[in-house]
Amino acid sequence: MTESAPPPLPDDNRQALCQVALACRKAALATSLDGRPYVSLVTVAFDDDLSPILLLSQLADHTRNLAADGRAALLLDGTDGLDNPQTGPRVTLVGVAAPDDAPRLRARFLDRHPGAREYADFADFAIWRMRLDKAHFVGGFGRAVWFDAPLVRT
Amino acid sequence: MTESAPPPLPDDNRQALCQVALACRKAALATSLDGRPYVSLVTVAFDDDLSPILLLSQLADHTRNLAADGRAALLLDGTDGLDNPQTGPRVTLVGVAAPDDAPRLRARFLDRHPGAREYADFADFAIWRMRLDKAHFVGGFGRAVWFDAPLVRT
Repeated sequence: MTESAPPPLPDDNRQALCQVALACRKAALATSLDGRPYVSLVTVAFDDDLSPILLLSQLADHTRNLAADGRAALLLDGTDGLDNPQTGPRVTLVGVAAPDDAPRLRARFLDRHPGAREYADFADFAIWRMRLDKAHFVGGFGRAVWFDAPLVRT
Repeated sequence: MTESAPPPLPDDNRQALCQVALACRKAALATSLDGRPYVSLVTVAFDDDLSPILLLSQLADHTRNLAADGRAALLLDGTDGLDNPQTGPRVTLVGVAAPDDAPRLRARFLDRHPGAREYADFADFAIWRMRLDKAHFVGGFGRAVWFDAPLVRT
């Protein structure tokens, strides 16, 4: 699938972080099992304050990990198409995930991932929201900054 | 950048795992800081037994995390271009990373990432090798399997 070129990155790091994150429909979710790191693919939507919204199956390893320890990190990768991805932008969101059955979150996830309507009602699936504690923006070499939450005033 | 369509996935899960992993030049590296998950972007090459080879800077958060606790996981994402990435293939490699100055590993990394020659000799960079303990292959819905190392007989 051919993607159009991403828009230029804003000079402001906080704006750039939000732009890179919001452009992503998938992400790498880091969880831990007894302190041992694990990472897996998830599809993602965002709440107004950039809190990630996930649709997770109880059958997946990452969901069992989060049920035991909700601490998580999410990598949003804006480097597709670059010969050296190290030169491109990406965001790590760090926080704590928990199930959240607010209809607003479910609607937002399904708006962004209409294909998930096929299985979102299965008994093993639930919406989780990740409350953010901090975020790391890397814009390429020499451009990296940590932010504390809130990232976005709502 | 337009990518050509990926080759069809082999029916054999172990072969499919290797094909998906080896096609990736970047990955999401999960580490932990005092038990808290972190995830970041890395560029990756592979040893003959599929052990990941990384070029890491001491200045990066993930390198500090690994220096304190080498346990790591790496997500290799073969789902680019799919409307629903949940239907596509990906691999999680789980193991322990440590610096390894074998010239063979450095040569292999730089063959795969020629752009890294610009900074590979900087004093803060070193080659790390991740010894694999196990791996998780997901080929889409209903196709997920764990393997213990060794994944590849060498």
